[in-house]
Amino acid sequence: MPKRLGKQTVIIESNVSIISSAAIVGVKEGEGPLSNYFDTIIEDAEWGEESWEKTESKMQREAVMTALKKGNVTESNLHYLLAGDLLNQSIGSTFGLREMGVPFFGLFGACSTMAESLSLAAMLTDGGFSDYSAAVTSSHFCTAERQFRMPLEYGGQRTPTSQWTVTGAGAAIVSKNGSGPYIRHVTTGKIVDMGIKDPNNMGSAMAPAAVDTMTAHFQDTGRTPDFYDLIVTGDLGAVGRAITIEMMEKNGYILDKYDDCGCMIFDLEQQDVSAGGSGCGCSAATLCGYILKSMTDKVFNNVLFIATGALMSPTTTLQGETIPAIAHAVAISNE
Amino acid sequence: MPKRLGKQTVIIESNVSIISSAAIVGVKEGEGPLSNYFDTIIEDAEWGEESWEKTESKMQREAVMTALKKGNVTESNLHYLLAGDLLNQSIGSTFGLREMGVPFFGLFGACSTMAESLSLAAMLTDGGFSDYSAAVTSSHFCTAERQFRMPLEYGGQRTPTSQWTVTGAGAAIVSKNGSGPYIRHVTTGKIVDMGIKDPNNMGSAMAPAAVDTMTAHFQDTGRTPDFYDLIVTGDLGAVGRAITIEMMEKNGYILDKYDDCGCMIFDLEQQDVSAGGSGCGCSAATLCGYILKSMTDKVFNNVLFIATGALMSPTTTLQGETIPAIAHAVAISNE
Repeated sequence: MPKRLGKQTVIIESNVSIISSAAIVGVKEGEGPLSNYFDTIIEDAEWGEESWEKTESKMQREAVMTALKKGNVTESNLHYLLAGDLLNQSIGSTFGLREMGVPFFGLFGACSTMAESLSLAAMLTDGGFSDYSAAVTSSHFCTAERQFRMPLEYGGQRTPTSQWTVTGAGAAIVSKNGSGPYIRHVTTGKIVDMGIKDPNNMGSAMAPAAVDTMTAHFQDTGRTPDFYDLIVTGDLGAVGRAITIEMMEKNGYILDKYDDCGCMIFDLEQQDVSAGGSGCGCSAATLCGYILKSMTDKVFNNVLFIATGALMSPTTTLQGETIPAIAHAVAISNE
Repeated sequence: MPKRLGKQTVIIESNVSIISSAAIVGVKEGEGPLSNYFDTIIEDAEWGEESWEKTESKMQREAVMTALKKGNVTESNLHYLLAGDLLNQSIGSTFGLREMGVPFFGLFGACSTMAESLSLAAMLTDGGFSDYSAAVTSSHFCTAERQFRMPLEYGGQRTPTSQWTVTGAGAAIVSKNGSGPYIRHVTTGKIVDMGIKDPNNMGSAMAPAAVDTMTAHFQDTGRTPDFYDLIVTGDLGAVGRAITIEMMEKNGYILDKYDDCGCMIFDLEQQDVSAGGSGCGCSAATLCGYILKSMTDKVFNNVLFIATGALMSPTTTLQGETIPAIAHAVAISNE
């Protein structure tokens, strides 16, 4: 049977399972609506480390170790680590995972990394190259803020369209054996750039990429949104979520069981996060905490997970560039 | 037949071919010993662009377009782009390739990216997920220098162990059909950190990673160095090259047909590059220019290509961290 389905989608024929997952989040995320679904809520922004970058690295490492433990797998069973993050030169991943002694593929998909890492893990497993692999990513409010925006001490005002970088890490263990949830399809995104220039409006920059990949997924598979009992984007927030619903409707798809991790992980009314959560950790912690747990509990049986990433850097913003974006989709099913 | 061979190596069973490649380099590289093997030598550091970052992006795009043309493949045939670079948030790749409309996997392996992208391209192809894909990376002396070290105008002195970032891009088109050269084995590196802290001595930081992966390759495959008529590391330079030879000898392997792209792309006596070339573009341009052309001409028939990456950032260096490194190996053969 051919594995390719249309221009952007592939079928994962064998029963590639997510056998376990773990989510570690910060204080603010621990006070949000998904609080009960996280494995660890760290006690402060430092978690015993001397820099926030080291804290973020520790979160990735602990997320992988917790997921391994929950899946009864040891580090020595892992064939690949697939990991990345938002920090320059992906130091959250490389420093966090350097002691594990596992073959390592570093990824950069900005906030789409959770879906990118699951996509590659699924294909490497189905291709016969991997028995066990770990897909992992993270973000930290304090490391992201000082790298992409201003020193925290500056105390700059935030615009209503801005989003709050999630302090969180998620790890999933992907296996060639297991009883699900199964990764059934992978739809890989193209870079989409609609000309948005405002780095305080990521939702608008990323929504067209989510729409592009979601539309490709439906066209490639012949499915309609009602096949899924949850369609979930990564970190578009309230602004990008509304744009996505509107653009998908123009493309002929009504999204009625749709939400966005950036709107789910925080209480947007109460938690002062402007348009919602963002960062690699937003979709990673929501998937590896809430969504996969809910699939195990049969609350959801078919989920389309579309993590979204904005691919700019402070340098490109200063050079007057627009913001390219990307979205990768993974279809996860209990059957 | 099982595809896994030992802890770190996989066999690529089908005839996954590198059907074409292209290398674009800067002025200094064009004056070096490999001058005749490059597709394009740009006329100055800007190549008509208004920033060096935009120049680097243009080099990646043109490398892919040239390789596609040489392979008689169009953009619409490509199933995947696998790309990354040294710049923060991989903007060389994302901005360079954003208009191509091809599903995109962003990678971060620092200077190991050429081997990382070829590794994943080979596995996705052998796994039945890709007919044609492009593996691409780049570096630019001026973008790397101002991001990792000092503004160029500062004119800082260089230490003898420092290396000169290559201005160069390389792209390879990987196909499920073709008449070679074939990717036969992929040995994926673990992160290795031997405690080196000096960012002006990358060769010493990366050599242990090259040794680790090379040793794993020989152990996993049962081969000895004499199987290959060229074993080539990515950008260890003269210092790292000497360390590699010595460490491999201690591991029981005599490397007599071994060289390093950082020592090959420049004339170390004449070109004032201290210990040699470095950067993603160093191994990429040497492979996609000189080595693959020499394989087509049967000068080499069996090559072990091991690209090496230093995974630090200026932030980790300022925070007193050591330099983790990684090396990925790809065995390429005419048979």
